[in-house]
Amino acid sequence: MNLFYQPAIPQGVLHLDVDESRHAIKVLRMRAGDALHLTDGRGSFYDAVITEADSKTCSFSINETQKIAKRNFSISIALAPTKNIDRTEWFVEKAVELGIEHIHFMRCKNSERRTINLDRIQKIMVSAMKQSGQAWLPGFSEMKQFQEILKLTASQKFICFVDSQNPDQLKQLAQTGQTYLVLIGPEGDFQKEELDLAITADFKKVSLGNNRLRTETAALAACHTLNLINL
Amino acid sequence: MNLFYQPAIPQGVLHLDVDESRHAIKVLRMRAGDALHLTDGRGSFYDAVITEADSKTCSFSINETQKIAKRNFSISIALAPTKNIDRTEWFVEKAVELGIEHIHFMRCKNSERRTINLDRIQKIMVSAMKQSGQAWLPGFSEMKQFQEILKLTASQKFICFVDSQNPDQLKQLAQTGQTYLVLIGPEGDFQKEELDLAITADFKKVSLGNNRLRTETAALAACHTLNLINL
Repeated sequence: MNLFYQPAIPQGVLHLDVDESRHAIKVLRMRAGDALHLTDGRGSFYDAVITEADSKTCSFSINETQKIAKRNFSISIALAPTKNIDRTEWFVEKAVELGIEHIHFMRCKNSERRTINLDRIQKIMVSAMKQSGQAWLPGFSEMKQFQEILKLTASQKFICFVDSQNPDQLKQLAQTGQTYLVLIGPEGDFQKEELDLAITADFKKVSLGNNRLRTETAALAACHTLNLINL
Repeated sequence: MNLFYQPAIPQGVLHLDVDESRHAIKVLRMRAGDALHLTDGRGSFYDAVITEADSKTCSFSINETQKIAKRNFSISIALAPTKNIDRTEWFVEKAVELGIEHIHFMRCKNSERRTINLDRIQKIMVSAMKQSGQAWLPGFSEMKQFQEILKLTASQKFICFVDSQNPDQLKQLAQTGQTYLVLIGPEGDFQKEELDLAITADFKKVSLGNNRLRTETAALAACHTLNLINL
């Protein structure tokens, strides 16, 4: 079943935006009277009916609202975006599917990419939320300096860093029901100075397994690990 | 450190193939006397030295061989390839990074894709093995009918299928140290008849979490879950 997105339903907006209207009316050929399943991305699903099948402003009326509680844990990942942006965008899609609360973009000393297109990130997130049938749209933040990321709060803070003196696995150190923040470094990894700053700021150094993982694979593995221990 | 691949070292071949030779000599500008780190993809790493820096046939001599034991568990995933082949290729890359033994391609009743380019799969696997620093190259098989896949043997066999009457999670049913085979259906999912056949063939029906996952996301989540419980 297709899920449509209208974030302004709580403010009384009862029509789809232009892209969603076109998709419903032109692509799916929906008509007045057809059932429409919606979310506001803020925790509610709506069972609605199309009242005006306009391909630019498709109006609807709501029959039923279902509130979905937030999960009792939350995952935030701060990622240094990859040189090849496809890899970062792929992570965003998959993380939303598997479940994530917030994605931070982080500028590190070894970062090869210093900017990111947030409009595309927003579109990918909305699409993945709809695809995976969720009622909560994850959040994201513009690119921040590493030092700013260190100031973020969470009940468990981790920095992924692979070295031979690092036997601690994220899976072992993470406890259930926490607010997690995990830092994933750039292709060239964190510099030693950054690692030290993070540890001073109460981040725990963790590994994700035995293999050397690409940035986006590490980020997704961290996200899935935290979802899994809470399952 | 760059890892190079020469599967025929055990048969006495002491030069790189043409693509690897060009990469070493033209791209990385390596020279005679430079150290070369290799794998045969069959469990050995080799510390070698370039003897002839030829960009078509780069020769080397081996100083040291390190044998890497196979893991005490093995993960095989049988996947119905996605309509958009990029999604399947992405899964292949990520599964190799995280750790997988074998990928089977499976033709189901609802499959939208009936063929697959195995040369590309091979290239992606080799590249991901090198990238992630592993000494074992996973295997793959050409497309098989669903019924043929059901004849494969494993100590724990699972079929991923999401329905509201399915509370069993892969994470809960999988035991450590097994040979796992997991079936992941096409975009339109398995048909009821296929599910019944699998259950008759001793596959256990499992879920991967609360969200509706794309085929390739489900396949990767299954792979990571099994790696994680064995970590």
